[in-house]
Amino acid sequence: MTSTDVAPNFSHTPRSEMSIQTIFWTGRSLRLLDQRQLPLKVEYVECQDALQAAHAIQNMTVRGAPAIGIVAAYGIVLAARSEAPLDEAERLLAASRPTAVNLHWALYRMGQLWRSGANADELDAEARAIHAEDLTQNIAMSELGAKRIGTGVGVLTHCNAGALATGGYGTALGVIRTAWRQGRITRVYHTETRPWLQGARLTAWEFREEGIPATMIADSAAAHLMEGGLVDWVIVGADRIAANGDVANKIGTYQLAVCARAHGVRFMVVAPTGTFDPSLPTGADIPIEQRSSAELTQFGGRGMTPPGTEVYNPVFDVTPSHLVDVIVCERGIIDKPDTENVAQLLRSGDA
Amino acid sequence: MTSTDVAPNFSHTPRSEMSIQTIFWTGRSLRLLDQRQLPLKVEYVECQDALQAAHAIQNMTVRGAPAIGIVAAYGIVLAARSEAPLDEAERLLAASRPTAVNLHWALYRMGQLWRSGANADELDAEARAIHAEDLTQNIAMSELGAKRIGTGVGVLTHCNAGALATGGYGTALGVIRTAWRQGRITRVYHTETRPWLQGARLTAWEFREEGIPATMIADSAAAHLMEGGLVDWVIVGADRIAANGDVANKIGTYQLAVCARAHGVRFMVVAPTGTFDPSLPTGADIPIEQRSSAELTQFGGRGMTPPGTEVYNPVFDVTPSHLVDVIVCERGIIDKPDTENVAQLLRSGDA
Repeated sequence: MTSTDVAPNFSHTPRSEMSIQTIFWTGRSLRLLDQRQLPLKVEYVECQDALQAAHAIQNMTVRGAPAIGIVAAYGIVLAARSEAPLDEAERLLAASRPTAVNLHWALYRMGQLWRSGANADELDAEARAIHAEDLTQNIAMSELGAKRIGTGVGVLTHCNAGALATGGYGTALGVIRTAWRQGRITRVYHTETRPWLQGARLTAWEFREEGIPATMIADSAAAHLMEGGLVDWVIVGADRIAANGDVANKIGTYQLAVCARAHGVRFMVVAPTGTFDPSLPTGADIPIEQRSSAELTQFGGRGMTPPGTEVYNPVFDVTPSHLVDVIVCERGIIDKPDTENVAQLLRSGDA
Repeated sequence: MTSTDVAPNFSHTPRSEMSIQTIFWTGRSLRLLDQRQLPLKVEYVECQDALQAAHAIQNMTVRGAPAIGIVAAYGIVLAARSEAPLDEAERLLAASRPTAVNLHWALYRMGQLWRSGANADELDAEARAIHAEDLTQNIAMSELGAKRIGTGVGVLTHCNAGALATGGYGTALGVIRTAWRQGRITRVYHTETRPWLQGARLTAWEFREEGIPATMIADSAAAHLMEGGLVDWVIVGADRIAANGDVANKIGTYQLAVCARAHGVRFMVVAPTGTFDPSLPTGADIPIEQRSSAELTQFGGRGMTPPGTEVYNPVFDVTPSHLVDVIVCERGIIDKPDTENVAQLLRSGDA
């Protein structure tokens, strides 16, 4: 894996109309905008094989549920191009992060193909299709979500569910982008999103790159903001949605949903169907990733806490479906999600 | 104002039995444990006059509602010793931070005395009395609070309401200290408390100094912890309590209270009567301090956000009394606080 600040050759990459893009595919290698360095540096990391792609997911060079699904798909192509064993590549990629199901969904799609004898070019086309579909789905969800939030509203988002987290454009940030352009939004707030600062580093950067004026708050200031009447909708992405509509997303999402309900603020989840995991009846079964305590005890290599401070660092939580007002996905909107209407929506695409 | 790492001469300082103390009084100058440097360095800042004391409050060398009240009282003594104009000293100290009322309460007590003609020695004795009373009150509150939480409980605290925030021992951390020694507590959690990291830097340090095993979480993980059944009581301090029992405290306290109520977790506020402001009917009138956006955009001088990121940084919020189960103060416990029972408790000390 090498770092480069040279603009990559992205002629093979599905492109949104947006300037921000995190995943570039050259046909032979994968170039990723290094999200660990943003916003201080705009640098790219190049992955030449599936192991490097898995590492890039694990160490959060690339993050965001749809984005890591796309990277996993390209990882399989990298393995196929170098004639590496595909089951080994699949195993490595599947183990890179536990919570987001998009990873497994993309690997399943690629696996069906190579197990049926597809060659590297066919796998390449499939990975690019996954990437291109994600973009298309983001645009579709953004239109649906923007229409649903109405006009003259204040919105709050958490973490980064933007172009950086997807094949381009974004899920929650896609809705906010589209709604902003349509003049629906009066105020945009985002959290800083401890511990990894996805909000402070990535969401602030995306808004800034596009000239959408946004205001950052500490994660702990959200309820105070709601109490002040400044927020009408909380809009977030998802890493996995169970069959009953329970939503796993960045730690703090659940807290926002509890506070939103207490203040009459509506709660919208924006995620493509690849984020649904119908094999899990409820969110109780979704694996929650625990990450290193260093994410909370250190910043930029400098200690913030006394040596030996014990930390509990779950980086996702589960928001029960009864706190979710709507799930927006590319096939439509689920109001008051439950097992029945989630199943109905998922069936609608199998026609 | 000078920094020193020499142990101060604290022979004039009221002392708790605890090893941790933040305010040392030599009779002629004030030495403060520099809380901006903790936990990386244990350093002291010396204040020779009221202006330096006001700066130390403003720049958070010393913080915590009871502690800044005590420092303000000593600031008046410093002015009296140097024959500086006391009304000017009072004005400077009163303006140093807006939210905590203990500052004004202590200055009012000192002002009554010097306006009635007290000399520097008499003012010195009064400031030491304020300091000593705070210690005594902390011990009393800690006994009352510890008894109330029962046994076999998990507790969560926010910010730092410990020995560092008071004349010694602490309010919320005082209750946790006493309850821990009494074997009542099974698990202690604390938030990191963005943006200033009072939890990560100060509360973690206090627990560590005393050998109380504690686990830190991101501010946004509190509801997830509650949902997991790990917390029975949230225990916090206060910066100002209105006549109806509404509580101003560190940003995020309100969010914790909303989440606590949603999970059947009880919510305890621990504060001496000097924290009550009966002049304000409700918390809506409590001034909320806004601090620099740099608290969120920088860490250790290093930028975390893109240049120009807009920030909303209220550092306190107001928890309405209906979300507070008990307020513990040195005179007793207020259950389900409201205007009537708050007034009753405050009257009880005027007998």
